Amino acid sequence: ARSYNITLLPGDGIGPEVVAVAKDVLSLAGALEGVELRFQEKLMGGSALDATGVPLPDETLAAARDSDAVLLGAIGGYKWDNNEKHLKPETGLLQLRAGLRVFANLRPAAVLLQLVDASTLKKEVAEGVDIMVVRELTGGIYFGKPRGFGTNDNGEETGFNTEVYAASEIDRIARVAFEVARKRRGKLCSVDKANVLEASMLWRRRVTALASEFADIELSHMYVDNAAMQLVRNPKQFDTIVTNNIFGDILSDEASMITGSIGMLPSASVGESGPGLFEPIHGSAPDIAGQDKANPLATILSAAMLLRYGLGEENAAKRIEAAVTETLNQGFRTGDIYSPGTTLVGCKRMGEEVLKTV
Amino acid sequence: ARSYNITLLPGDGIGPEVVAVAKDVLSLAGALEGVELRFQEKLMGGSALDATGVPLPDETLAAARDSDAVLLGAIGGYKWDNNEKHLKPETGLLQLRAGLRVFANLRPAAVLLQLVDASTLKKEVAEGVDIMVVRELTGGIYFGKPRGFGTNDNGEETGFNTEVYAASEIDRIARVAFEVARKRRGKLCSVDKANVLEASMLWRRRVTALASEFADIELSHMYVDNAAMQLVRNPKQFDTIVTNNIFGDILSDEASMITGSIGMLPSASVGESGPGLFEPIHGSAPDIAGQDKANPLATILSAAMLLRYGLGEENAAKRIEAAVTETLNQGFRTGDIYSPGTTLVGCKRMGEEVLKTV
Ligand SMILES: CC(C)[C@H](C(=O)O)[C@@H](O)C(=O)O
Ligand SMILES: CC(C)[C@H](C(=O)O)[C@@H](O)C(=O)O
Repeated sequence: ARSYNITLLPGDGIGPEVVAVAKDVLSLAGALEGVELRFQEKLMGGSALDATGVPLPDETLAAARDSDAVLLGAIGGYKWDNNEKHLKPETGLLQLRAGLRVFANLRPAAVLLQLVDASTLKKEVAEGVDIMVVRELTGGIYFGKPRGFGTNDNGEETGFNTEVYAASEIDRIARVAFEVARKRRGKLCSVDKANVLEASMLWRRRVTALASEFADIELSHMYVDNAAMQLVRNPKQFDTIVTNNIFGDILSDEASMITGSIGMLPSASVGESGPGLFEPIHGSAPDIAGQDKANPLATILSAAMLLRYGLGEENAAKRIEAAVTETLNQGFRTGDIYSPGTTLVGCKRMGEEVLKTV
Repeated sequence: ARSYNITLLPGDGIGPEVVAVAKDVLSLAGALEGVELRFQEKLMGGSALDATGVPLPDETLAAARDSDAVLLGAIGGYKWDNNEKHLKPETGLLQLRAGLRVFANLRPAAVLLQLVDASTLKKEVAEGVDIMVVRELTGGIYFGKPRGFGTNDNGEETGFNTEVYAASEIDRIARVAFEVARKRRGKLCSVDKANVLEASMLWRRRVTALASEFADIELSHMYVDNAAMQLVRNPKQFDTIVTNNIFGDILSDEASMITGSIGMLPSASVGESGPGLFEPIHGSAPDIAGQDKANPLATILSAAMLLRYGLGEENAAKRIEAAVTETLNQGFRTGDIYSPGTTLVGCKRMGEEVLKTV
């Protein structure tokens, strides 16, 4: 039997609850497809800070690196919000992304038939939306140097960051995006601010140059401000979007909210080799932590992405996705996606229902 | 009689049509309030490029600086899209903003009762939305140095920009925003990415420090990715938003699209002293230019902002705003906001109807 080592990083808030449920689903789906999954759990985020004084202990990064894939719950919480930068849970997440070199972040935002009413957009606008945002994850202004605090000519304090991309960083994320578009509807929209920023001008130039290698893909370019508008005006115009780290942060969150059910949305972060990082896009929701109210489906669907993009186990991935669809069809809903006429369940029960249909 | 010099910059595409109409409305509203307005028209954007080889001729900037306020139509078009940076219409606009030192960009996004159906958001979500985005306009990554193209250690080409804010730049835009919030519903949300960027950490620190001077204002902070979500989820939670140049570019466009009628939305850019710059937020719409189809209301409402924020002529401003409301109540609509049961009119006719009710 094929066997893999999975590192689980439950993290903070609702993280442990949703990861526990997703782990069971992952095990079963694997087992049914002849795949053995071995799990090890490590500290990460605020809980790592509390236990070890740093948001990403060396041991966690080493374990993650040595495994075949990493499943993360969520990190952060009010408790650590005012920490200094190097002691923020978020800093641990950035270190993990950089440490695993997972430069390509895939964020699907699809409106599910069963949940179309959850969108704040009109039904005719939301129905059928199916977008994949491919976000560059280990470069740009998140990691660019120089960065820090300084003093300007007037003796005033300044804060500064550098948005920078090298040609190869753009090429590799663009290639991933073209390939993703090819497996979808063949349309790729590259989002930048090339009318103002040099970093974006290079971005546009490199993406355009690659297009000849992907003649079957319909490539377009859009300015980021317009993209933020068009996602609201007519999200159905988009298939695959590729963009830099910060624009991807903003636009993927906007796109996910358009679906109305961010408790449902998974993500995958992958590199050229080595383990990928898989996590729900929602946060740690400290206000409902420990109450068995969280929606585990985003993490369960992240586990499906782990099987597909992390391990190449397409059949097991499909099994999980089909089980989630079936569970929704049966009418089970956590609080965040509940509507009259459906059956309200908690996090654990939702997991049990998915397990039954896996 | 009070008298003022206004510089008109019709620009490109539909710019000349909408400015011509707004000029007439401005004249009449002024005259009825005992205000004499003298106009001079100057070249700007693509039309300036074609005529003089630069997007902002010195003469235009000098004239704008010497006047009491500037009304701009729109700039840009396919024709100049692939120009080098210093020959882009957009570069002229950035030079104009910098040259006039208009660091505070006020962008209202309100859903009008008469046009609530134009929003792609559900009626109950869109109804009553009334947001003012205060965007920093002459700093940040738009103007930060160093910027350009370079070569990294691997000999690869790079493109880079610098996001930088000095304490005083943050303080002055925050003050404007607190004052704006005070004249509105007393709520200010500062948007940043302080969990990642040093420039944002300083931003948050300075805004927070100023709050003690504005104890009557309810200040909150939000990360930009969350703000992009919350604008879709529940835009009514926002009153006044203050943010940096690039986040303001993205979020103000997103907010404006939530109203569903960007053909209606004006903007004002003001500095510490000197003339302000007033312009519709829509673009130059080259595809409908010269066809008398453009919606002139955003420019007419920009003229109202010019009277209010640029000249302190509140009565004349109110006259224009009331006339626009009345014209909409009478059922007149340009194509972009048309719905069955209303009267479809062109740009000129819309102007005439507003003139009748001024
Ligand atoms: C927590 C934060 C650092 C992170 C980011 O900005 O990348 C988050 O918003 C995300 O999108 O995963
Ligand atoms: C045309 C462009 C340079 C400009 C900007 O990015 O500021 C525009 O998008 C705006 O918001 O006024």
